[in-house]
Amino acid sequence: MNTYLSGIQSSGLLHLGNWFGAMRPHIELQEREGEHFYFIADYHALTTSRDPEALRDNVREAVVAYLAMGLDPERAVFWRQSDVPEVTELSWMLSCVTGMGLFERAHSYKDKIAKGVKPNVGLFTYPALMAADILAFDPTHVPVGADQKQHVEMTQDMAASFNAAFNAEVFRRPEPLIEAQDKLAKVVGTDGQKMSKSYGNTIWIFETGKKLKKAVNTITTDSRPPEEPKEPESVLLFRFLELFLEAEELSEWEERVRQGGADGPGYGHLKVRLIELIEETFRAGRERREELLADPGEIDRLLALGADRARERAVAVRDRALEACGLR
Amino acid sequence: MNTYLSGIQSSGLLHLGNWFGAMRPHIELQEREGEHFYFIADYHALTTSRDPEALRDNVREAVVAYLAMGLDPERAVFWRQSDVPEVTELSWMLSCVTGMGLFERAHSYKDKIAKGVKPNVGLFTYPALMAADILAFDPTHVPVGADQKQHVEMTQDMAASFNAAFNAEVFRRPEPLIEAQDKLAKVVGTDGQKMSKSYGNTIWIFETGKKLKKAVNTITTDSRPPEEPKEPESVLLFRFLELFLEAEELSEWEERVRQGGADGPGYGHLKVRLIELIEETFRAGRERREELLADPGEIDRLLALGADRARERAVAVRDRALEACGLR
Repeated sequence: MNTYLSGIQSSGLLHLGNWFGAMRPHIELQEREGEHFYFIADYHALTTSRDPEALRDNVREAVVAYLAMGLDPERAVFWRQSDVPEVTELSWMLSCVTGMGLFERAHSYKDKIAKGVKPNVGLFTYPALMAADILAFDPTHVPVGADQKQHVEMTQDMAASFNAAFNAEVFRRPEPLIEAQDKLAKVVGTDGQKMSKSYGNTIWIFETGKKLKKAVNTITTDSRPPEEPKEPESVLLFRFLELFLEAEELSEWEERVRQGGADGPGYGHLKVRLIELIEETFRAGRERREELLADPGEIDRLLALGADRARERAVAVRDRALEACGLR
Repeated sequence: MNTYLSGIQSSGLLHLGNWFGAMRPHIELQEREGEHFYFIADYHALTTSRDPEALRDNVREAVVAYLAMGLDPERAVFWRQSDVPEVTELSWMLSCVTGMGLFERAHSYKDKIAKGVKPNVGLFTYPALMAADILAFDPTHVPVGADQKQHVEMTQDMAASFNAAFNAEVFRRPEPLIEAQDKLAKVVGTDGQKMSKSYGNTIWIFETGKKLKKAVNTITTDSRPPEEPKEPESVLLFRFLELFLEAEELSEWEERVRQGGADGPGYGHLKVRLIELIEETFRAGRERREELLADPGEIDRLLALGADRARERAVAVRDRALEACGLR
């Protein structure tokens, strides 16, 4: 049986890049036969977070957004990382069989150093916790973006090192699953760069009304008039519309833009259609989100359920590891 | 109220150096008013251990030796480190507020690198786990050897960093307590170097009979005859005798060695007396050790009691830390 596991970042309001790049693939993945494990990586957020209120809000928002958009907490095990202390125990055990060189070569660490982030020990040992997050649940497949493939490979290395050091089959080798994340690179922000919170070019998936209109209005356009024929590739709004539109309607719009003339749509027309599409796509989720936010007891109940189910698996794996290395 | 906390290494049969340097001071310390916390540092042993059977034996031996020699598990909280997963959680939280530089400067890491030990990540992050081991129990005083003072200072730094980062009084500042370990440096091995398992110059505290005689016979002597007057400082056996003898008897022996002549004692006489002293000092403990080893259920009961009491404190501290940084 396949077991899928993925971590979810908790860095604020979820935007279109998060949706098409991670949330939707995650939620679609749970339709596959097998077991599903999804966790909110709140311990990881601590490597950079120094604002307790913001971290609390971000975690709550990630939990609620996933549930609202269709993550099924009965079908998938869904929990907060920090509710499963066994991952920090496994992180310690794995770090004792891992050479310093492996972590010094990690992209995420080198990138942060290069960006001038003052390094802390958590940032450096992050791959050990990530490996424990994975190995604690015996997954067969870990859906990740291409940029995170190295972390799964490091996890494979650490699992193999532990098994070899103690001559025991404690950890199952997980494989990265990259196909589901194909669209990640395609989501651009309002300025045409990759959509990212750190660039300030995001659109919140649950935005609506005047605020949504304002957000969509920040998508870069130019001063060419509606009647001027244009290549659709030169119109940034199409990078957004193509995320939502069926092929047929998309072709019609592209054709009209390419022709121009009296029937040539202005950027305003494209924006109105985009606003409709965003509001429609996330309407049911937005309503479900409001319901959940009004019922904190239900959120807590679902998190407790997920924590119990996750710990059951993690405790078994942790006990296997303790036994193998002689701590039990 | 003072709270004393100390960690106990689990590296094999306990020898005279362990006894005079750590065990006896620990056991004497529990007479002081206040709370007492002692743990077997089995998670730390994993930085170098690759032999599950040896680790299991070493931990069991350390537990039994401490109990046999008078550690009172009702008076002191006495547990195995790996029974309290909260320390690995706290270790993660502390590592996220600790700069890499602090750990790179740690003596224990630099020493091991200098000795050619292939570095692993556990060896490098050891000070974070050690800080968590301390801070999880709110101690006021940490009895350590002078060589470990830096670790308590690093713990103070990490506690202060966390409290400052989240503007909360989560961790109490512990102070090193060095007085109790004065005798540590004085215990020499059978070859005159510091007594240490890695030098192969130890005498097991519970050794007896022929094996003890054989061990004592390996203490370095020379070929000077009994009647030749000698300075007691030139006789290595006195470094052992002075650990056990009352001042009066010690002076008598020293005087006789200094005088020499017909009444000058041979090295054999000194060895016989040393064997008597070792057997006497550890006789009751040796018997109690045999009883405990014959009753594994009692050892497990005491460890479970200690783990429960230790976790009660550690869970409270962990929850304070989670709350402060926004994970709850």
